[in-house]
Amino acid sequence: MQFSSALLENAVNEFAKLPGIGKKTALRLVLHLLKQEPEKVGLFGEAIIKMRREIRFCQRCYNVADADICSICSNSMRRQELVCVVENIRDVIAIESTQQFSGTYHILGGIISPLDGIGPDQLHIEALIQRVQKEKIEEIIFALNPNIQGDTTIYYIQKKLQSYPVRVTTIARGIAFGGELEYADEMTLARSITNRLPVESYVSNR
Amino acid sequence: MQFSSALLENAVNEFAKLPGIGKKTALRLVLHLLKQEPEKVGLFGEAIIKMRREIRFCQRCYNVADADICSICSNSMRRQELVCVVENIRDVIAIESTQQFSGTYHILGGIISPLDGIGPDQLHIEALIQRVQKEKIEEIIFALNPNIQGDTTIYYIQKKLQSYPVRVTTIARGIAFGGELEYADEMTLARSITNRLPVESYVSNR
Ligand SMILES: [Zn+2]
Ligand SMILES: [Zn+2]
Repeated sequence: MQFSSALLENAVNEFAKLPGIGKKTALRLVLHLLKQEPEKVGLFGEAIIKMRREIRFCQRCYNVADADICSICSNSMRRQELVCVVENIRDVIAIESTQQFSGTYHILGGIISPLDGIGPDQLHIEALIQRVQKEKIEEIIFALNPNIQGDTTIYYIQKKLQSYPVRVTTIARGIAFGGELEYADEMTLARSITNRLPVESYVSNR
Repeated sequence: MQFSSALLENAVNEFAKLPGIGKKTALRLVLHLLKQEPEKVGLFGEAIIKMRREIRFCQRCYNVADADICSICSNSMRRQELVCVVENIRDVIAIESTQQFSGTYHILGGIISPLDGIGPDQLHIEALIQRVQKEKIEEIIFALNPNIQGDTTIYYIQKKLQSYPVRVTTIARGIAFGGELEYADEMTLARSITNRLPVESYVSNR
């Protein structure tokens, strides 16, 4: 792609560094911004620079935060004795968007995956154990992706927690509502049979 | 989508204002930037703010420029007597990327489209006529999208130019009628310029 303006070229190249944004899309986005008022484009640029410069990670749960402690940890309306363990920030946003969970979180920052060279020491597992020691945590709910790495991570942490008086649960695994049984993978299907529920409790939950 | 950080939410909302970028994509892009060094993210934001604040439009051809006159108009290696008339900046970038055109440009800023309320007065047509009067232009090459609006625009300008001693041509139909110039491959686009036709023969062929 040939540009007759270094300013335009530079902006396009910066956009094209983003994942999934090719040169043509980058050009389309930059030409869109070129049609906006400079003040609006200023707000766009500043929001991103400020976000990266000022965002912090909660010293307690490792969620993104605008202060030392995140807005969920510092919210007295949330049940601090209930901790949902997730892989990353995306999962927090997904669960928060359901507006059904009133507890707090602990973000591991990944899952145990020997093939990718990720061991327990690279995750915020020790910090979770320390929270269980120091805080009055009644229940740890694992909300990890249902795969081998997720299961390995749950197993590892659960063993570490065995000596503490804390209830350890995991979100229900099964076939998604609206999903089709015949297309479910064998692992999911097998587990959904093993972990079958009494119909009464299932029906009363609906 | 529920965020626990106003900084994160603000950045996601700004990205989601861009055309074709939904909330999920915006979040993905922001989380990518969150993993980058603050300096790198600073360069991204600054490049976009600077582009919008400092970019100008060439006083001669209306191309994007880093000065009063664009780098193509001020390049003595370009054939100033040859002017390629295009709809927008995207088309200039597409033609420049073929590296086959050694003339200059004139950007109309749109095409005549009565249904969209765009008449000749909203385009840089009068400026083109004045260039023909003042500059030693030998040939005007129309490189407009091959559709009804493009043809209407060519016809309108050609009539205005009839009293001047300038050759008027249009790029060859290598591009299918109804196709869009900016998506044409470089070879097709380069050939359609090389095999350009006099407008008289083109108009009489219809
Ligand atoms: Zn927190
Ligand atoms: Zn120019």
